[in-house]
Amino acid sequence: MSTPQIHLSVQGSRLCERIQALAQVGALKGGGVCRLALTPADKAGRDLVISWMTELGLSVSVDRIGNIMGLRAGHVDAPPVFIGSHIDTVATGGAYDGNLGVLAGLEVLQCLAEAGIETELPIAVAIFTNEEGARFAPDMMGSGVHQGSLDLEEMLAVEGIDGTTVGADLEAIGYAGESPCGSQRASAFIELHVEQGPLLEEEGFMIGAVEGVQGISWTEFLWSGVSNHAGTTPMRLRHDAGYAAADLACFVRDLALDHGGDQVATVGSVQLQPNLVNVIANQARMTVDLRNTDDQVLKRVERQTLEYAKSLADHEGLELETRILARFAPVAFSQRLIGLVEKHATDLGHSVRRMPSGAGHDAQMFAPNCPSTMIFVPSKGGISHNIHEYTAPEEIQAGGDVLLRMVLALAGVRSTG
Amino acid sequence: MSTPQIHLSVQGSRLCERIQALAQVGALKGGGVCRLALTPADKAGRDLVISWMTELGLSVSVDRIGNIMGLRAGHVDAPPVFIGSHIDTVATGGAYDGNLGVLAGLEVLQCLAEAGIETELPIAVAIFTNEEGARFAPDMMGSGVHQGSLDLEEMLAVEGIDGTTVGADLEAIGYAGESPCGSQRASAFIELHVEQGPLLEEEGFMIGAVEGVQGISWTEFLWSGVSNHAGTTPMRLRHDAGYAAADLACFVRDLALDHGGDQVATVGSVQLQPNLVNVIANQARMTVDLRNTDDQVLKRVERQTLEYAKSLADHEGLELETRILARFAPVAFSQRLIGLVEKHATDLGHSVRRMPSGAGHDAQMFAPNCPSTMIFVPSKGGISHNIHEYTAPEEIQAGGDVLLRMVLALAGVRSTG
Repeated sequence: MSTPQIHLSVQGSRLCERIQALAQVGALKGGGVCRLALTPADKAGRDLVISWMTELGLSVSVDRIGNIMGLRAGHVDAPPVFIGSHIDTVATGGAYDGNLGVLAGLEVLQCLAEAGIETELPIAVAIFTNEEGARFAPDMMGSGVHQGSLDLEEMLAVEGIDGTTVGADLEAIGYAGESPCGSQRASAFIELHVEQGPLLEEEGFMIGAVEGVQGISWTEFLWSGVSNHAGTTPMRLRHDAGYAAADLACFVRDLALDHGGDQVATVGSVQLQPNLVNVIANQARMTVDLRNTDDQVLKRVERQTLEYAKSLADHEGLELETRILARFAPVAFSQRLIGLVEKHATDLGHSVRRMPSGAGHDAQMFAPNCPSTMIFVPSKGGISHNIHEYTAPEEIQAGGDVLLRMVLALAGVRSTG
Repeated sequence: MSTPQIHLSVQGSRLCERIQALAQVGALKGGGVCRLALTPADKAGRDLVISWMTELGLSVSVDRIGNIMGLRAGHVDAPPVFIGSHIDTVATGGAYDGNLGVLAGLEVLQCLAEAGIETELPIAVAIFTNEEGARFAPDMMGSGVHQGSLDLEEMLAVEGIDGTTVGADLEAIGYAGESPCGSQRASAFIELHVEQGPLLEEEGFMIGAVEGVQGISWTEFLWSGVSNHAGTTPMRLRHDAGYAAADLACFVRDLALDHGGDQVATVGSVQLQPNLVNVIANQARMTVDLRNTDDQVLKRVERQTLEYAKSLADHEGLELETRILARFAPVAFSQRLIGLVEKHATDLGHSVRRMPSGAGHDAQMFAPNCPSTMIFVPSKGGISHNIHEYTAPEEIQAGGDVLLRMVLALAGVRSTG
């Protein structure tokens, strides 16, 4: 590698301008963005980014699940280094989630072009279809199909919340492409993303070197007891489903605190029946969301939660039904690439910490098939999936520069000598 | 008092037949009764009971709030002994709640008539308007107006859940009577009622000698925190409104158990926002229902609950707003009358225990103004305000006989010598 790249830097202001320009597409009154996957707004966003890809001289292709790839040639006939993310949003989303990773990829390529730098490996900037899963389940659909973990035909047939299918909507917005997908090879995968959590800001770090994606366990607990009068039923004769829900919520919180580390536990949804001030609930439906980067620990926490719930049901004289809503094993990113993120961030003078991702990302679909990792930059207040999502220009500059160094390291600079 | 009454007994079968006949008015398909106050079904129920009063030769009058009184003359010019309750039901009510007290009163008077027994004091069987409060708030409206604790004109103007007023509906069903109300005197008040709780059945008692009505404290707690991602937000950086609701629910349950005695605590209603499996709740609205027969203890429990909630809000970094939804001081019944219920139940060979009422009843409106108490009989499974409400014929027989003895004791048998 030759020395000139050491002082190379992305133009953060240009990147921020593109982020703001894309955020105008599907902009909500009062702030924020609604660009749900495969809607006319999504089409308009795609059209805009493709126009930028074309300006940069990239070779643009669309595959059968609607993933867009802007390719910059290399000197070696090998699979490209992918810089990928998404531009679909949730219904009340922000400007940064996903969009940052795609537009920073364009900025990196523009920076290389302007500096006259060629690389050994080709570089692809990719936009993956329906990462959010807000209109069509599952999420990370485009990257899943791209890497062969989701079946193309099954995904095209998925019916969404509006009653249409993925395939029909791809046709409708003109993004039912022709490139094959299902076994697309990549030399490496790198995704710059906002943290969507508070850790970097809280601890004063600029860059997160993402070690992997937490395993996710979602279980619904349905407690059934006896509805009775709040005044006439002594405590010892109650079969209070609402109490069991409260007790289990406290248990999983304590369990997460006791485990420490990355373990988190959340009871985000509770419904009592009949939900009246003076009636003991005969039914309580609640969800428990458990996450950990270590699958063995996650399994232990799941087991402890279930055992406690069963003993609570026995003690309170309640029926208990449980239903697994989702279960994903943790994904580990490439130790080599994680180390590279740390190195380049440090070289650039940025504070950096290793951390897991608590949310799912396109990068995890690539992780089993090629060296992959992510770069996190801070989210103000930890807020994401929210119109108030914000990452500061200097943080975007820092993340873009680390991404640039990673791409140069992974794609290899063509010696000009 | 002469000896013959000792062997006098109500005809339980006749009383049960009347209970079943009245339950046909407003009967629900599949069981249960809907005779909401001041509806056509309520009118039909009133008409039926008045026809029985008339058959018994009672002097029937209706007052301005629609209370019905069937009066049997005595030999002394004094206020009557009241046997009272209600015949309105909740939307999915049973055959016994309220109806038992009214129809057992008629049975007692029929029994006296058939035995040729006259009393010193007059005896009134009363049906009080809108005890349930299911269509018009507040509950115990008729007895409250009757005894002057609620204002007649205010109550006539009350608008109900259907948009009509009490006054208009009284006119509509022809029960806007002319008798005055507001300061009606009674020599004593006695109400036979189903327990609506599980204690008598659970402990194997036939009769409850009701010592009073529990004080009631309803408070709404509104917790406001920060909505955040369940995966990306470490436990220590959370401001989880849902957790606070769960913790407080466990606290009040433990507090009630620690206090023991009659203390009960119920969290019957909880709503989380946004109530999603993977989002930490930014808002939790919950109710706490606390009851005790001892107002000092109830006040202490209220204070402890509020102090704990405040410290929890501080600890979790949450905002807390509280709102008092209802607060009624306990009502104590006449020690003399409670003792009489115990004595007569025991004389009749029935097991009896003193107990509080966890629910409100018409009797409490009389308690400040004349010697008052209630007789409880078991509710199967503690179930009430439910189509499955049930009290067995032998329990109705037992309750009717204790009522009969109480009435004879309170009204005084006219010596036939």
